[in-house]
Amino acid sequence: MSVIAKKLADLGITLPAPAVPQAAYTPYVITGNLVFISGQLPMEDGKLNITGRLGAEVDIPTGQKAARLCALNILAHLNKACGGDLDKVAGCIKLGGFVASAADFFSQPEVMNGASELMQQVFGETGKHARFAVGVGNLPRNAAVEVDAIFALKS
Amino acid sequence: MSVIAKKLADLGITLPAPAVPQAAYTPYVITGNLVFISGQLPMEDGKLNITGRLGAEVDIPTGQKAARLCALNILAHLNKACGGDLDKVAGCIKLGGFVASAADFFSQPEVMNGASELMQQVFGETGKHARFAVGVGNLPRNAAVEVDAIFALKS
Amino acid sequence: MSVIAKKLADLGITLPAPAVPQAAYTPYVITGNLVFISGQLPMEDGKLNITGRLGAEVDIPTGQKAARLCALNILAHLNKACGGDLDKVAGCIKLGGFVASAADFFSQPEVMNGASELMQQVFGETGKHARFAVGVGNLPRNAAVEVDAIFALKS
Repeated sequence: MSVIAKKLADLGITLPAPAVPQAAYTPYVITGNLVFISGQLPMEDGKLNITGRLGAEVDIPTGQKAARLCALNILAHLNKACGGDLDKVAGCIKLGGFVASAADFFSQPEVMNGASELMQQVFGETGKHARFAVGVGNLPRNAAVEVDAIFALKS
Repeated sequence: MSVIAKKLADLGITLPAPAVPQAAYTPYVITGNLVFISGQLPMEDGKLNITGRLGAEVDIPTGQKAARLCALNILAHLNKACGGDLDKVAGCIKLGGFVASAADFFSQPEVMNGASELMQQVFGETGKHARFAVGVGNLPRNAAVEVDAIFALKS
Repeated sequence: MSVIAKKLADLGITLPAPAVPQAAYTPYVITGNLVFISGQLPMEDGKLNITGRLGAEVDIPTGQKAARLCALNILAHLNKACGGDLDKVAGCIKLGGFVASAADFFSQPEVMNGASELMQQVFGETGKHARFAVGVGNLPRNAAVEVDAIFALKS
């Protein structure tokens, strides 16, 4: 059992089945030692789990859960990109966080911590990443959060 | 005639003249074997062609055409970055899609397919890319769509 | 005194103290010869200086100042990433510009020039970068602008 697989088990995390894009793109692309992961929605058991805007239909704890679900789906695709061995990951480079937000909601960083903290729980020090967190009016299928990512692989 | 030039001709595509930025940046930067292309608007014949928001003034087919125009302008800059030889392109790595959206519009992925499908038509399997598609309140000059991109060059 | 340090002095620019993230991420990550810098807000003297939306509470000159402040904070983190020697920077690759915008504000590029022009003032020709500039409904802590960045280091 790889180090990261054991870490996931210790955390009680089962990665979701990587979702198949319903549009004309792919979930990840590898170039050099970088892996670019497409923007992920808060899917759980194959269904979009958390919809609506922060500051309106969605509160911060639920938004954090949405961001964490996005991150789990990112890890599912990353795992596939690594041929099932997440020990090949050198580190998380960047997360891009889009938070569906009502007009007076300004706590996007708190929401995105749901994704960022998962990366650190799973990868430790190399899970620390650059990121942005911004509020947008609306996301695909009324998702509460969308997160994309860049990872580096060991060379 | 290069393979991709022939493919463009077969598709009946003439690349637009690459637009000169009207601000303090450049259309593309090459670093290592990566090409970063600036966010492109739906310009046609030197004019911003499609303005307004999806879900309000712009319907999905028109939004898809806007996304395709953004992608054509991306290819125009990429072509220049490659010294006129798109056969030097190893693949499309990532598209970032911003769709100007009314409050209840949630079909950003369908709109962005206008850009994504062009990449696959032109480059085939290596045209498949990671991407995000998000809804934003407004874009420069009231453009309906803005798309930026990362490509890899053959080494 | 390094070339860029002298340039900063000539421009009368003192870099701010790099802010410590108040959330679960890091200000920058280096991978290969690329430096990814997290989204920066218009902080000055440790305080968020410019809040509100362009086209409403914030006018274009103030928005440009906000973008420039974001860029100064980017440089502060970049400087730290370089161990205090900005001469190690090969160039600015990309800026991502998010401008908090009222519904009828479409001049995001003009606002982002406040960041882009600083990069060219400091780095000259290698300060020219790819970028996007988009309007969003709201940003963390009601900031007027958020900018993230990618730089290349000399190898």
